[in-house]
Amino acid sequence: MGLKGRDVISIRDLAREEIDELLAAARRMIPYAEGRKRGHALEDQILVLAFFEPSTRTRLSFDTAMQRLGGRCVTIADPGSSSIRKGESLSDTVRMLSAYGDAIVLRHPNEGAARLAATVSDRPVINAGDGAGQHPTQTLLDLATMQEAFGTLSGLKVVLLGDLRFGRTVHSLAHALALFGSQMVLVSPPQLRLPEEVREQLDHAGAKVEEEEQLHRALRDADVLYVTRMQRERFGDDLEFARIADSYRVDTNVLAAAKSRLIVLHPLPRTVEIAPEVDGTPHAAYFRQASLAVPVRMALLSLILTGKAP
Amino acid sequence: MGLKGRDVISIRDLAREEIDELLAAARRMIPYAEGRKRGHALEDQILVLAFFEPSTRTRLSFDTAMQRLGGRCVTIADPGSSSIRKGESLSDTVRMLSAYGDAIVLRHPNEGAARLAATVSDRPVINAGDGAGQHPTQTLLDLATMQEAFGTLSGLKVVLLGDLRFGRTVHSLAHALALFGSQMVLVSPPQLRLPEEVREQLDHAGAKVEEEEQLHRALRDADVLYVTRMQRERFGDDLEFARIADSYRVDTNVLAAAKSRLIVLHPLPRTVEIAPEVDGTPHAAYFRQASLAVPVRMALLSLILTGKAP
Amino acid sequence: MGLKGRDVISIRDLAREEIDELLAAARRMIPYAEGRKRGHALEDQILVLAFFEPSTRTRLSFDTAMQRLGGRCVTIADPGSSSIRKGESLSDTVRMLSAYGDAIVLRHPNEGAARLAATVSDRPVINAGDGAGQHPTQTLLDLATMQEAFGTLSGLKVVLLGDLRFGRTVHSLAHALALFGSQMVLVSPPQLRLPEEVREQLDHAGAKVEEEEQLHRALRDADVLYVTRMQRERFGDDLEFARIADSYRVDTNVLAAAKSRLIVLHPLPRTVEIAPEVDGTPHAAYFRQASLAVPVRMALLSLILTGKAP
Repeated sequence: MGLKGRDVISIRDLAREEIDELLAAARRMIPYAEGRKRGHALEDQILVLAFFEPSTRTRLSFDTAMQRLGGRCVTIADPGSSSIRKGESLSDTVRMLSAYGDAIVLRHPNEGAARLAATVSDRPVINAGDGAGQHPTQTLLDLATMQEAFGTLSGLKVVLLGDLRFGRTVHSLAHALALFGSQMVLVSPPQLRLPEEVREQLDHAGAKVEEEEQLHRALRDADVLYVTRMQRERFGDDLEFARIADSYRVDTNVLAAAKSRLIVLHPLPRTVEIAPEVDGTPHAAYFRQASLAVPVRMALLSLILTGKAP
Repeated sequence: MGLKGRDVISIRDLAREEIDELLAAARRMIPYAEGRKRGHALEDQILVLAFFEPSTRTRLSFDTAMQRLGGRCVTIADPGSSSIRKGESLSDTVRMLSAYGDAIVLRHPNEGAARLAATVSDRPVINAGDGAGQHPTQTLLDLATMQEAFGTLSGLKVVLLGDLRFGRTVHSLAHALALFGSQMVLVSPPQLRLPEEVREQLDHAGAKVEEEEQLHRALRDADVLYVTRMQRERFGDDLEFARIADSYRVDTNVLAAAKSRLIVLHPLPRTVEIAPEVDGTPHAAYFRQASLAVPVRMALLSLILTGKAP
Repeated sequence: MGLKGRDVISIRDLAREEIDELLAAARRMIPYAEGRKRGHALEDQILVLAFFEPSTRTRLSFDTAMQRLGGRCVTIADPGSSSIRKGESLSDTVRMLSAYGDAIVLRHPNEGAARLAATVSDRPVINAGDGAGQHPTQTLLDLATMQEAFGTLSGLKVVLLGDLRFGRTVHSLAHALALFGSQMVLVSPPQLRLPEEVREQLDHAGAKVEEEEQLHRALRDADVLYVTRMQRERFGDDLEFARIADSYRVDTNVLAAAKSRLIVLHPLPRTVEIAPEVDGTPHAAYFRQASLAVPVRMALLSLILTGKAP
């Protein structure tokens, strides 16, 4: 059916073939993203960046992606300067935004906000994170990084580490890995385990998922270590947080037993989860992952707005 | 004398012929505003969007309008990040801004700020709202919506409902309706009646104005119902506010007795003044009104910056 | 060695010949800056404006400068909406930014931040102010204004007035004046004298520097009076501040004894340091200085991004 004019609210809105198409397009976008080639595909198109919650990384990468292809953006970067403060409903706000731009990128603190926006808007809506909900373009760039490293998304062994309960990027990623037939190993403190319903959906999709308490055991034969941020607020006290954060901290010692080709990913920003000493190792792929944000979002914008990607 | 290089501080700065010219240009801009035609008229022009008070709707529509015609914007969206915080005078700030762009759109909390800015700036200044003062481009898009619906701005019967005291959009609109010879019916709670001096100006201009307590009576034969937001702060207590807001709430019941061609307008954002059930009726013109913000502002920018509109 | 790809962290990173080249390029940029000529040199280049501290004037002039040459910007204008709030290190943030744009303009509250950013980024970093540290582009526009007025930067007598201790613009300017062989007279309250180490660096560079308590004596034969803002926080109480601010206030009376060609500069925003009555005199060059911000930054961006300036 093609991606032109489509809303992208959840990674599950995309078929495996569509994800393949997006990732292939993203690879072709890399020289444009790096400024080595000049893009024109989105000239005269206007993208509304509606960030009702701060997210510099996501906002700037969409902005860059649009402009690298000749497009323009209008931006709400600060929730405080919004009509929402005056009591306007999200529906009314979105109706306005869809009169201004050719597509809307929405970041919102409330789960379900993007889905609601899509029903109201007559322009495509891209979900850039809705509370505890979905963040599909983050998953696309996670996948793009793995595919660049291994040439495939099938048959990989991926360790998911940290906050698997509240970390929305991990839920989306798990669904995608199931779709491509990769194996997952879950490592998390007891209070941050993957929610039951996500686990059931994965089982239902025939995903290969196991849990493992010990990180060093999980890392055996692993291809990817996907680290998430654990938030202080999830723990009873500072001491408990420090103890657990420390026991899951990824450093060169932890990685000593890993395969030489193992890559470490992180949606960033990181705080203490990955020691800076890892940055200089061949395992560190999280900065590459961050830089793929631009070509992946270029591919998505181009396919949604024009139906094709250069 | 033409609009090129002109300041637009109050709707009263514009002659009837100039408003006609602007509205005709706005109609021609619609295909460009909707992205169906590609505009170049403002390439290489830079518009300064100086919003010292948040107003997402106004700011984004100016930004879109400028960019739809190939122009560029530089933006102050957040009053907190401004030199004004460091104690700079508005005059000094405006002198700086006029060195950066080809025109300035100014939103400011203080009445009279735009007029002051215009005296200091050697670039055109467009008032995008100055406190309890003026908001002329809102009036232009109100007029554009009426004209699109009725083909004329003369001989209409327009009901102005709600906060007629502090609602600056209503004052500007009333002046324009007087200019075009339309009739006004004022409906408001006693504490929010049109200020005496505005009423006197209207009388002096020969406007046909009457007051009416009952909304359903005012609606007889009315062509336009212009609804404004009533702010909680204007009332003694929550109970009084709720009672009055409820008695002026526009729903399908209230509209049952109206002419089939009556249109409901609202400068938005709305909170409780118009029931969502009205959205689906042919009376609801407020979303159309919001979307005309872009072509109207395109017309204004084009005429002020280049003296003509495509 | 050319300026292409260079970081500009401190004015001392630039040789005298490079400053000359920049100022000559800035002069050629003036018609482009004023919108009389159309620039294309930076088409398809993206500049990251990373302002982790508010600075409207600096941010907008960089934004305008980039866009006047056809370039594009992506912007962090509000420190609150940044990943830094989530505990990310500056290094990680800068690595991300350097994946998004072709150069980074950084404003940061911490001294040394820009130098650190430059070591991490693989794109050029321009320091737009780092706490009590450096602000080299401000110095370039200070110099551009003097050179426009006198045709040279050598052999001038420049009075530096006000907060010479914390005012970073003054430290950078003093180094540059030493480089070009102009003479400096320092006038400040005792608690705001030039720091010893800056004074020693100047002496070491062979600069002609003297101190003078009385402003009117310092002004004898002076070509330039460079005024800085004194901040209330630097003084014990309001009374002391008021007394000292008053004794250093520049008004037409103070200027009566000055040479007719003396120009008054100020990095702006000003509060009480210069009386508004000075604005109308031929001495007032601070608005011209502010407007040169655009062509100076155009020249810098063009030389750094492309190695040449139109």
